[in-house]
Amino acid sequence: MADEPQLIDIKNAEFPCFWGIDIGGTNIKIGLVDSRGQTVAFDKLPTREPEGAQAAVDRASKCIAAMEARLGIGADRIPRVGLGSPGSMDLPRGMLVEPPNLPNWYYFPLRDAFVQKLHRPVTFLNDANAAAYGEFWLGAGREHSSMALLTLGTGVGGGIINDGHLINGVNSFGSECGHIIVDSRDDAELCVWGGGRGQLEAYASASAVVRRVRQRLNAGEKSSLSGALGGSQDELTAKRVFHAAEAEDRLALDVIDETARWLGIGITSIVHTIDPGLVVLGGAMNFGGMNLRWGEGFWNALRRFLRSGDSTTS
Amino acid sequence: MADEPQLIDIKNAEFPCFWGIDIGGTNIKIGLVDSRGQTVAFDKLPTREPEGAQAAVDRASKCIAAMEARLGIGADRIPRVGLGSPGSMDLPRGMLVEPPNLPNWYYFPLRDAFVQKLHRPVTFLNDANAAAYGEFWLGAGREHSSMALLTLGTGVGGGIINDGHLINGVNSFGSECGHIIVDSRDDAELCVWGGGRGQLEAYASASAVVRRVRQRLNAGEKSSLSGALGGSQDELTAKRVFHAAEAEDRLALDVIDETARWLGIGITSIVHTIDPGLVVLGGAMNFGGMNLRWGEGFWNALRRFLRSGDSTTS
Repeated sequence: MADEPQLIDIKNAEFPCFWGIDIGGTNIKIGLVDSRGQTVAFDKLPTREPEGAQAAVDRASKCIAAMEARLGIGADRIPRVGLGSPGSMDLPRGMLVEPPNLPNWYYFPLRDAFVQKLHRPVTFLNDANAAAYGEFWLGAGREHSSMALLTLGTGVGGGIINDGHLINGVNSFGSECGHIIVDSRDDAELCVWGGGRGQLEAYASASAVVRRVRQRLNAGEKSSLSGALGGSQDELTAKRVFHAAEAEDRLALDVIDETARWLGIGITSIVHTIDPGLVVLGGAMNFGGMNLRWGEGFWNALRRFLRSGDSTTS
Repeated sequence: MADEPQLIDIKNAEFPCFWGIDIGGTNIKIGLVDSRGQTVAFDKLPTREPEGAQAAVDRASKCIAAMEARLGIGADRIPRVGLGSPGSMDLPRGMLVEPPNLPNWYYFPLRDAFVQKLHRPVTFLNDANAAAYGEFWLGAGREHSSMALLTLGTGVGGGIINDGHLINGVNSFGSECGHIIVDSRDDAELCVWGGGRGQLEAYASASAVVRRVRQRLNAGEKSSLSGALGGSQDELTAKRVFHAAEAEDRLALDVIDETARWLGIGITSIVHTIDPGLVVLGGAMNFGGMNLRWGEGFWNALRRFLRSGDSTTS
């Protein structure tokens, strides 16, 4: 059974409401969202990936049933469910395909398993695309007709909305902005998932920042970050690199300037393909959110590398 | 007045019909298309760009009136008009902005000028996007829900249809696939229109093929193409390069292999952004259409460089 729900505030809800279920490698997050997009109830439970997908669907559905009992409402006032999970997936069939961080859930019919438990329609999306649509509906994109979101974290995720429509792709691989090629050299960085070389994810993710700093420290460059390298616990994180840049560490500034350059190349290709009018950056490497004085420097570097004057970046 | 129309075959038309007007730097092409997409009448007239846009609109509209008189039908059976022109443009306002090959037509309200003459609604699109939609409606894309078209000619044009919707872009710059960045090096080729470096157009157009062959010949490489260089008339064309490749000329084969590599990089980025399920290549550098035995070699090279196994190329 689920723990005590973390938030319940139904009194101001505008019905109908909708369940949102976000499947992650570590946690499953469950939110009840009203017609205006306000979260009126929220809970989370551990994914327990090795127990398999059906067990997780059972637990998540029980958690929802418990919250509905507590709220005193049901399917008549919460008529639909939104479900997001990491890919790869087959959206028309509602199936997971081979999500790398859910190795025991391959080829599981996730959407229909929830339909069977919750007895209402379930809309299934790639998690990054669902996040982009949320940002489009309620966040930075709410005054726009089109938008691209890039999430810079362990990887680079993305979601693109063109004229109100999410680009999900024919093979459910749409909006995979992290896989745009930014480096065409034969010795370009390999994608961590195997296969392609030179993809944005290997250049503009938090992991890529850490990797480049580590390479340069190992090559003997001096930096205030040298102490974060090696030992039993490697404490080199993107956040530390940003703070070092804030303190004007040369190596950190260099690497982040490079990152802005790669990101600018990727964004330029997106802008020329989609012309969304708005590109939003989010995720762990959300420099604005970190409230670094130096964050402005990153934006300036990024703008410098953007090869189009026509797009707003925010 | 226009010359004699080149084609009139109204007897099998399925009404309603639609006028299609394609504005080019040299000619204006006018076609009457029926509900099934069949061309039932066709004519063309010189653009005479220096005389200005209004003069051309007047002549094109007279040509249409003459054809309608001859056909004995009018606005009741031909209720709408489709209009394509090269960009840059402002689609919501129906205006040309600064189309490089129509220098005397800058900031002309092309759509409304035709509305005023033809007295019916005019749908205005970028010419490459309109071509892509035609291919989607009636050609290679007719069994698909999404498609990307790349036209390889003097430049690289494109049009992308996502789930039935053409990607026109918020600033009317959507689907500009020729401007995707494929080469991130600091000394990458410059865009001929100025500004960006490393864009697909500078690597995969017919002009780019010719430029690379010329560079290598000038550097002293031996090739059956050497005779096509220099003299009062430079006869080096992409077509000659392809025929040289057909005859197993090493330099020509090399350059076209490089072209396939750059094209593969650009297509990979499109596929990861849109996941259209179908990528169609057209334009002057349509190798299949040239019926070269060696064309298959280009396809194989392109497939080799495509870094995704999920997309059909045809």
